[in-house]
Amino acid sequence: MGDTADGQSIAIIGLGLIGSSIGLALKRAAPRTRIVGLDRSPTSADTALRIGAVDRVTEHGSEAVQRSDVIIIATPIDTVVDVAGAIIPYVRDDAAVTDVGGTKERIVRECEPLLGGRFVGGHPMAGSERSGPSAARPDMFRHAPWLLTPTPATQSWALDRITGLVATLGARPSYISPAQHDRLQARLSALPHLLAFVLAAVGQQLDTNAAAHSGGSFRDATRVARSSPDVWAAILADNGANVVDALIDTEARLRSIREALNARNIDHVAELLREGHTPS
Amino acid sequence: MGDTADGQSIAIIGLGLIGSSIGLALKRAAPRTRIVGLDRSPTSADTALRIGAVDRVTEHGSEAVQRSDVIIIATPIDTVVDVAGAIIPYVRDDAAVTDVGGTKERIVRECEPLLGGRFVGGHPMAGSERSGPSAARPDMFRHAPWLLTPTPATQSWALDRITGLVATLGARPSYISPAQHDRLQARLSALPHLLAFVLAAVGQQLDTNAAAHSGGSFRDATRVARSSPDVWAAILADNGANVVDALIDTEARLRSIREALNARNIDHVAELLREGHTPS
Repeated sequence: MGDTADGQSIAIIGLGLIGSSIGLALKRAAPRTRIVGLDRSPTSADTALRIGAVDRVTEHGSEAVQRSDVIIIATPIDTVVDVAGAIIPYVRDDAAVTDVGGTKERIVRECEPLLGGRFVGGHPMAGSERSGPSAARPDMFRHAPWLLTPTPATQSWALDRITGLVATLGARPSYISPAQHDRLQARLSALPHLLAFVLAAVGQQLDTNAAAHSGGSFRDATRVARSSPDVWAAILADNGANVVDALIDTEARLRSIREALNARNIDHVAELLREGHTPS
Repeated sequence: MGDTADGQSIAIIGLGLIGSSIGLALKRAAPRTRIVGLDRSPTSADTALRIGAVDRVTEHGSEAVQRSDVIIIATPIDTVVDVAGAIIPYVRDDAAVTDVGGTKERIVRECEPLLGGRFVGGHPMAGSERSGPSAARPDMFRHAPWLLTPTPATQSWALDRITGLVATLGARPSYISPAQHDRLQARLSALPHLLAFVLAAVGQQLDTNAAAHSGGSFRDATRVARSSPDVWAAILADNGANVVDALIDTEARLRSIREALNARNIDHVAELLREGHTPS
């Protein structure tokens, strides 16, 4: 399972929900770890420091990374590559770098030429419809899948170190190629978010007080429609081809069910539902 | 708020998840109530009796209803009208009858000629992806909406009595026409169930172990795909025109998002998501 994180020096760049939750989880599981944090928002940095997600904060990327064994880039997906480029001069040769972006193919393709085999793409399958360090939780990653996307260029010591870090956080690390990750992400994360926004819109169209008239199925299915539309538009766009593919499949299935309903063919409707039936 | 149920004689016909939960909730909130239950499955009847959802069970509809102040038909939607027809000779003139079917327009239209103004259509917006009396819970309806669908033919004492019963169960009764109920149900209950089945199918298509690689958004959005496909096919078909209408709207929104992704227009994607954004 590789190194454990305890005793290492860790830099967390980006102290939002995920970055701060990583800090809280690390401080709990590996108390000898030294964590330095960096965020372009002074308010977020202050909050992360106050809740104990980091030992100290800095405004300088150079200072954050030059003594670190592991550097975690936890910024939004459209800035990960810029951050990687900015820290290159200060990253030690024996430091491992990872990110937590919800898409992997482009990020890995652009980060590897910058950081080489020290970079390991990562994506925790955990989060919340809330955002910012004030929503951070030390148990955010407990038993959650954490997908790591090594390539033939990845150095084994770097992969071991990031795997050990993820395990220390309580998550379940597993390996997958960046391309396969993005195909899965389109269906298991992007699509449920997209459908939540669409379902909330369709429900509200008829009843602005939809929530008051609805039961658990609507409430659960629209929970993540509280997430930021801008953040999700960026994630969907960065994985555009796979999301379009998942949407074509989804629309075809909806059309089939609609046609069976129009034909009043209950048996065929049941058959189509059964394709997605998840036995308890 | 009308009568309270305590001290009344109640018959529950159909001792599945909802019927048995009504019994458990009533026994807790109104202990002097006498409840007789009836189910065509001896196993379900035995279980309901054993968990204390009813005081006694019977195999005879006549015996179940002839001394009851309130009769609750809690069978699947395709048998509600048959049950109403079968009990007519034994229902007292001063007894109120209600049902818990997930669709209301057809059921009310067919039950009113049989039972007259004693009949009040009802639909608790609560449930579970599990089924049967062993999944029943006394707090199933606590704070849940419970839609009642009176018509100009409904007698006010019957409406008062059913309203009182629903309030006793801990639910929030509200009135709505059968037609408006079915329009809402299509978007707030049928559609989230339908999308859960479709999303589960789209996820599993790429990864038979989708659940292990997914986070909370996929898990929550597919929870109700554990429900019975046959039960939901019947509910969707019984509300076919409204569900088709909701599907046409859903498909159009998905197509718009897909086209914006194909055009790499992130701003437009964000705009389309924003239409369903639910502020926290």
